[in-house]
Amino acid sequence: MITAQVANEDDGEDKLHEECGVVGIHGDPEASRLSYLALHALQHRGQEGAGIVTVNHKGLESITGVGLVSEVFTESKLNTLPGDIAIGHVRYSTSGASMLKNVQPFIATCKLGSLAVAHNGNFLNYKQLKRKLEENGSIFIASSDTELVLHLIAKSKAKTFLLRIIDACEKLRGAFSMVFVFEDKLVAVRDPFGFRPLVMGRRSNGAVVFASETCALDLIDARYEREVCPGEIVVVDRGDVGESSMFMVSHPEPKQCVFEHGYFSQPNSIVFGRSVYETRRMYGEILATVAPVECDVVIAVPDSGTVAALGYAAKAGVPFQIGLLRSHYAKRTFIEPTQKIRDFAVKAKLSPVRSVLEGKRVVVVDDSIVRGTTSLKIVRMLRDAGAKQVHMRIALPPMIASCYYGVDTPRSQELISSKMSVEKIRKHINCDTLAFLPLDSLKQVYGPVESRSYCYACFTGKYPVTETETEENNAERERELNAL
Amino acid sequence: MITAQVANEDDGEDKLHEECGVVGIHGDPEASRLSYLALHALQHRGQEGAGIVTVNHKGLESITGVGLVSEVFTESKLNTLPGDIAIGHVRYSTSGASMLKNVQPFIATCKLGSLAVAHNGNFLNYKQLKRKLEENGSIFIASSDTELVLHLIAKSKAKTFLLRIIDACEKLRGAFSMVFVFEDKLVAVRDPFGFRPLVMGRRSNGAVVFASETCALDLIDARYEREVCPGEIVVVDRGDVGESSMFMVSHPEPKQCVFEHGYFSQPNSIVFGRSVYETRRMYGEILATVAPVECDVVIAVPDSGTVAALGYAAKAGVPFQIGLLRSHYAKRTFIEPTQKIRDFAVKAKLSPVRSVLEGKRVVVVDDSIVRGTTSLKIVRMLRDAGAKQVHMRIALPPMIASCYYGVDTPRSQELISSKMSVEKIRKHINCDTLAFLPLDSLKQVYGPVESRSYCYACFTGKYPVTETETEENNAERERELNAL
Amino acid sequence: MITAQVANEDDGEDKLHEECGVVGIHGDPEASRLSYLALHALQHRGQEGAGIVTVNHKGLESITGVGLVSEVFTESKLNTLPGDIAIGHVRYSTSGASMLKNVQPFIATCKLGSLAVAHNGNFLNYKQLKRKLEENGSIFIASSDTELVLHLIAKSKAKTFLLRIIDACEKLRGAFSMVFVFEDKLVAVRDPFGFRPLVMGRRSNGAVVFASETCALDLIDARYEREVCPGEIVVVDRGDVGESSMFMVSHPEPKQCVFEHGYFSQPNSIVFGRSVYETRRMYGEILATVAPVECDVVIAVPDSGTVAALGYAAKAGVPFQIGLLRSHYAKRTFIEPTQKIRDFAVKAKLSPVRSVLEGKRVVVVDDSIVRGTTSLKIVRMLRDAGAKQVHMRIALPPMIASCYYGVDTPRSQELISSKMSVEKIRKHINCDTLAFLPLDSLKQVYGPVESRSYCYACFTGKYPVTETETEENNAERERELNAL
Amino acid sequence: MITAQVANEDDGEDKLHEECGVVGIHGDPEASRLSYLALHALQHRGQEGAGIVTVNHKGLESITGVGLVSEVFTESKLNTLPGDIAIGHVRYSTSGASMLKNVQPFIATCKLGSLAVAHNGNFLNYKQLKRKLEENGSIFIASSDTELVLHLIAKSKAKTFLLRIIDACEKLRGAFSMVFVFEDKLVAVRDPFGFRPLVMGRRSNGAVVFASETCALDLIDARYEREVCPGEIVVVDRGDVGESSMFMVSHPEPKQCVFEHGYFSQPNSIVFGRSVYETRRMYGEILATVAPVECDVVIAVPDSGTVAALGYAAKAGVPFQIGLLRSHYAKRTFIEPTQKIRDFAVKAKLSPVRSVLEGKRVVVVDDSIVRGTTSLKIVRMLRDAGAKQVHMRIALPPMIASCYYGVDTPRSQELISSKMSVEKIRKHINCDTLAFLPLDSLKQVYGPVESRSYCYACFTGKYPVTETETEENNAERERELNAL
Repeated sequence: MITAQVANEDDGEDKLHEECGVVGIHGDPEASRLSYLALHALQHRGQEGAGIVTVNHKGLESITGVGLVSEVFTESKLNTLPGDIAIGHVRYSTSGASMLKNVQPFIATCKLGSLAVAHNGNFLNYKQLKRKLEENGSIFIASSDTELVLHLIAKSKAKTFLLRIIDACEKLRGAFSMVFVFEDKLVAVRDPFGFRPLVMGRRSNGAVVFASETCALDLIDARYEREVCPGEIVVVDRGDVGESSMFMVSHPEPKQCVFEHGYFSQPNSIVFGRSVYETRRMYGEILATVAPVECDVVIAVPDSGTVAALGYAAKAGVPFQIGLLRSHYAKRTFIEPTQKIRDFAVKAKLSPVRSVLEGKRVVVVDDSIVRGTTSLKIVRMLRDAGAKQVHMRIALPPMIASCYYGVDTPRSQELISSKMSVEKIRKHINCDTLAFLPLDSLKQVYGPVESRSYCYACFTGKYPVTETETEENNAERERELNAL
Repeated sequence: MITAQVANEDDGEDKLHEECGVVGIHGDPEASRLSYLALHALQHRGQEGAGIVTVNHKGLESITGVGLVSEVFTESKLNTLPGDIAIGHVRYSTSGASMLKNVQPFIATCKLGSLAVAHNGNFLNYKQLKRKLEENGSIFIASSDTELVLHLIAKSKAKTFLLRIIDACEKLRGAFSMVFVFEDKLVAVRDPFGFRPLVMGRRSNGAVVFASETCALDLIDARYEREVCPGEIVVVDRGDVGESSMFMVSHPEPKQCVFEHGYFSQPNSIVFGRSVYETRRMYGEILATVAPVECDVVIAVPDSGTVAALGYAAKAGVPFQIGLLRSHYAKRTFIEPTQKIRDFAVKAKLSPVRSVLEGKRVVVVDDSIVRGTTSLKIVRMLRDAGAKQVHMRIALPPMIASCYYGVDTPRSQELISSKMSVEKIRKHINCDTLAFLPLDSLKQVYGPVESRSYCYACFTGKYPVTETETEENNAERERELNAL
Repeated sequence: MITAQVANEDDGEDKLHEECGVVGIHGDPEASRLSYLALHALQHRGQEGAGIVTVNHKGLESITGVGLVSEVFTESKLNTLPGDIAIGHVRYSTSGASMLKNVQPFIATCKLGSLAVAHNGNFLNYKQLKRKLEENGSIFIASSDTELVLHLIAKSKAKTFLLRIIDACEKLRGAFSMVFVFEDKLVAVRDPFGFRPLVMGRRSNGAVVFASETCALDLIDARYEREVCPGEIVVVDRGDVGESSMFMVSHPEPKQCVFEHGYFSQPNSIVFGRSVYETRRMYGEILATVAPVECDVVIAVPDSGTVAALGYAAKAGVPFQIGLLRSHYAKRTFIEPTQKIRDFAVKAKLSPVRSVLEGKRVVVVDDSIVRGTTSLKIVRMLRDAGAKQVHMRIALPPMIASCYYGVDTPRSQELISSKMSVEKIRKHINCDTLAFLPLDSLKQVYGPVESRSYCYACFTGKYPVTETETEENNAERERELNAL
Repeated sequence: MITAQVANEDDGEDKLHEECGVVGIHGDPEASRLSYLALHALQHRGQEGAGIVTVNHKGLESITGVGLVSEVFTESKLNTLPGDIAIGHVRYSTSGASMLKNVQPFIATCKLGSLAVAHNGNFLNYKQLKRKLEENGSIFIASSDTELVLHLIAKSKAKTFLLRIIDACEKLRGAFSMVFVFEDKLVAVRDPFGFRPLVMGRRSNGAVVFASETCALDLIDARYEREVCPGEIVVVDRGDVGESSMFMVSHPEPKQCVFEHGYFSQPNSIVFGRSVYETRRMYGEILATVAPVECDVVIAVPDSGTVAALGYAAKAGVPFQIGLLRSHYAKRTFIEPTQKIRDFAVKAKLSPVRSVLEGKRVVVVDDSIVRGTTSLKIVRMLRDAGAKQVHMRIALPPMIASCYYGVDTPRSQELISSKMSVEKIRKHINCDTLAFLPLDSLKQVYGPVESRSYCYACFTGKYPVTETETEENNAERERELNAL
């Protein structure tokens, strides 16, 4: 087992973590600068590291680094990345200097030349494929599963990089939204289930842009055209009139991640063809309908609970107020006095507004409860600030199962909803009432047809694709990956 | 004229800047750690630099640095500041390494020993006093006007530091909320007009805490007791049963800064005896009454416009929505493509939410318009995102005159309201209607009596205290100070 | 072609660069700390980056970083590397943040588990092997040729790591001194020609230490035992009484790098069984015999010319003086005035001592002339400082051919001695006389038998091993490697 | 008592520390760049911090920072310092971020305008003058005694800065070589005893240069003209044909610091009109005459002992060799294994060369013994490396008394020679013989007349100027200063 240096910053926040954002640009003379801006717009999808690869007459050129997009890139660095094709990546926040090895995009040379890839997702059959590749003498140097794709491409017998990418993608199981660059081509791929988002847009100069979310298109003045479809492989070639597209053989019903709507994506993005804001607001409205309560004020756990709280408040006919303020400066862990301050880690990030809360019956809306550690402190803070009653409303169903499709979830056993009933959780976090958005109500938002194209595995434990993976060996792989 | 290195980061934001936050703690064995946390809670008042001075058996010990509180202090650094008395300071964001000389608290040794001070405010008679002191052979090393207080204390003929502080304060004109530490005493002072806030609280172990805002008390579990009164000098001494208090001779009607309620302070603070949140919400409500308009949605320019927007929306009976998202990662200037992206600097910080705006008649609430440069771009962004009409509402009166009481304002000529009528501004920023909160309406919030204790100079040009200072020589002084 | 960010710091020094130093420790509870110290002692062999891998119950753990050993490692980082087996590496100074991918040791996982390697040298058949591996579907991620070894091990059909290492080493051509770690074993390998040094020592607690030079043994109180022989593979296993050893099949006459004696190694090291100091001093003595000249003082170009200069002076019976001082602070490039200062880059590093030089006939001893750019400036500086005559003496033969055995040499065409006769060089650098140590004289130092076991390729152009490599394709490979 | 953050890095080196280097340039359009280079050449006089002040049409501009000259200044920073007059300063290595307040040059504004100063030395009557100034209401902000000069200038009744500088200098007692800049004038001052060096040179374009040592002139192609005389005040004015000069009233016999010749200055400098190299070599020669011993080899403790060792070896007719190597990379403290390595701190900096030492009777030459802690370890290292006998020779007399003239010396009681006879020291450091250069022999180097113009206080305890200062109150002041 290999373990590298990982600084463990317990940030007192009990939230899921998205694992990446990707961007690809073809046909713009400022491809690297636009990628940089697009990555900034996708920064919420990953703060560990960022990288950009461009293609120009010298081949592939790359800059990657640990930190925020604005920290990794300087004007002079971007100037060293000329070319009109680029891909970029932001990576979610674990940390430690030696993690630089995992910052994407990855470049590899093989028989056909050089190719780069940026990946958002998780391969379910990573372990089996890795084992098979290792048996055939492949070695794995980075700890990211993205290296696997490069091996599959290198091992493919197909004659061109494009055919090999198709070949490799057909072998992969799980969640993957990827962009590739090689020669003068940009290729975007989304797995057949379409777990993770990937959209396509166009700038006024004709340049094609792929990105995880539309908010990246907006910042660089690219018009949103459509999603890359589940199972689709879009190829953009220099000198083409347009771009060509093909589909992987396996073509099941899509299983798109409902958490993108409920938590991960920016509210101003269109994800899976829907406004995130609108969808999230509807979650709140329905929640107000199915879990009403007498109250004086509706507040949110900012920022992710805010839009649903607005929906809840509107439906309930109760004023929405800012009952909790989020600090702009609490990125780091704070040094605590030895005379413990209660709920310190949460308090350094969230401050209650007494004048909103005092003497009130408060509904507080959050997007999810993971382990329950933060909810407990929030309820206590609200009471300490004078709330007469605290009613917690969660704008997604109870999470009972780990996600294997590109989200960093605790093991199922650690999820509070897998161990406790709603009533027990209520007692544990000590609120007056607690309600989750029922799964059926959530599906209402999408209607009977569209609702079939989403993944609810974390609420039901029924996984659309599992291969031979059990939670155990997956966990083992994760440990292994983390350990690398 | 002396000029030091100043990095000029035009951050595309057209807002006023507060000039500091202070904290003082007496009688807690962890005085430096609590100061550090209090400064974190006051971080919104200044991001340039931070410092803490403690008193212990070795005398005064200090750590100061450039950057955020969390960057300046580490656990091991705090460990080198034992002692149960401490003062701290955060300084507003200009920049440049050589600015370290200006990071407070300042320590000086003079005949009576050593003394440290942290200051929020601005001395109007700085120039005259400095000239007089220089004529008597004093030298000025730092570029901050805080050095002046130390000189006055040193020059005083009084026998004790305390008497000399009183002596010095009586000579000073302008805005000052200061904390001093010397021997085993902590002294808090607020100028007779009480321009800048300063509150007092107590921890359960009896430790006395002074801070610019109550949000600092909240984070360290100190109970808010009262404001330091305008003109009051509070002395906390070791071994005392309580603290003693005295008043400066000059004792005019208070003139507290109304911008603290409207913009500077955290919504969860109590400032000048009032909930900032509640006050700001009332601004919005009254604004809705005096400047109504047919509309479909009310949005805010986050974060400072949010609470007033909630008030406006509630009063208007129109839904409040998040129409503009603020990026958590846009602290730095962004590198722009050479093919200009319209309104780039604002777009990197604020993203419009199309699904909230499209086809809607939008009221957008902001706290103030300074030069008008940002408002212009916000209106355009909202229209580009589909808003059918854009009605801008400003929750404070038009600003026509510079502030000399501790706020970093542009010169009066640069303030758009000093040059244009409301209608002209409306045309300039191209919104459908524009309205400010009338000054009379603002005063309504406070009622006939209390309203007399606020300063409205920036709305009226009538300064409560000017000494012989005209705008010109003040501007000159500012240039001089900046240049040092 | 792939190009990553490389800062180009022309440091005004016209010297060859060694490409690495390695260390391996087995059986000491503080293996990582001792490795860290050993790497510090080997710092002259590489300043770009440093890394350590340890083995403990959790498997392989690693810390690598860009910079000096003292910059990469802190006490707390070393504390995260427990275990009694470790290997370490220092890498020669190219630069650029993205180069972190190349900082060794490299860890890879393959079918048999995990293995780490640290390498000093250069593989001549890298290109062919890489091409063959790529044809079989291998991919190359790092730009260092060390990745090749890992691929060969992974592809081997042998049953254990040890057998596979042997297998791989038999396939490699060129220069390699390597240490491997896997399971509980430490393996040290030196190529059959023994181009690069590798020694073995033992601490008083029985721990076995391998290092590039004995100066590393000295710092950690390890007793020097012997060299790892050319072609030898030494295996140290836990619980063994001693260590076992085997040899590669190919077992030619050794061809050890004479530049290790003349320039690269520390004077206090024993390299190839000989004291570097003593050998270098003898070079100087013989040079005095074969190239005498009337002179008043002998000086050195510090530090590498000093020991030979002492030898020259002693033999010539002329006083040695410090005629050139080396700055301790000239690590970085200096900013030059626009009114050019003559020979600036050299002057910032070397200062002439006028009182030693004025009016004197000066012999100045250097170890080698590469492109001749620095020599020119040194001669001019000496004359400017008053030297009446300048006689340059080079304590190695003229260098006419590039090295492919682990030394970073310019292409042959750039070597001044490949283009000019000694007399032409003399005129070019404008000294009064110029002499090199003749190759035959150099061999005298070693005697007729031992002299056969050294490589003189850079003086003769006759390469002991070339495979099918010509300079051209080697240069191409180098470009390719640098470009990665 | 005020104490700021000071990192305590015991560097295992038992040497005296010089307290500063200064430079001043008048009449060169690139004054700041040349100052930067001159400071680099003076870097051995101080590594804590560096700063430059220039004069141009905007007034005085300054950049100062903590660290080496090459770390504090970048090309773009130097570009912000236009002007053809500049002064600069390097400060000796204590440390801690908050020490930035002490980095010189200091700028102050007073009645007459702005003035900057850079100072090398130490004021003996600092305490009295400070007390008097404080009684008149002056405050002291920085912890350096240089602030005192600025106060004296500000308090002077004279009409111009120049007259006030003279006035101030007449009040000061002790060691001071200073450069001032104000309006368009550059002023250089050396105290009447001339304790610290200060030279004057000229560039080919007529620019006048002052510097602590001539090595700074050499790097910037300035011709050495003469010393600034003890007690002289040289004024360089714009538009002057030359420069004018005046002398302070007090005009005793000079007492120049003999340690500048023996240890502090660079060997290539001319200091007090003499070649440092030549003088130091003569110390070694005389030492060989007065303290001969049968030996096989003479080595130095590098770098400061090297030149004297060459003199010793030449006179003794015994070969000089490099018996100890100094690491180029041991600037920082090294992390030691818990199983203590003997003499670790010294070993990380100095490595013995066994082939030089083994079986030999070794003379090792050092410049001084301060506390004796390092000498002990050096002797042990030499013996461990095989030396049969170790004879230590010190090229200066025994140091028995602290220096108050600008050198950072331990208190007299800590000096080993103040507590032990030579024989006792010999036993303590365990060498076979030990000899110092007798004071009379040292004086021989200078001859009967010149020898009267040097200070020998550290060898004799007879101080040329003491004011009312005793060692005790001086020590107190030092503590106080350090503590600030």
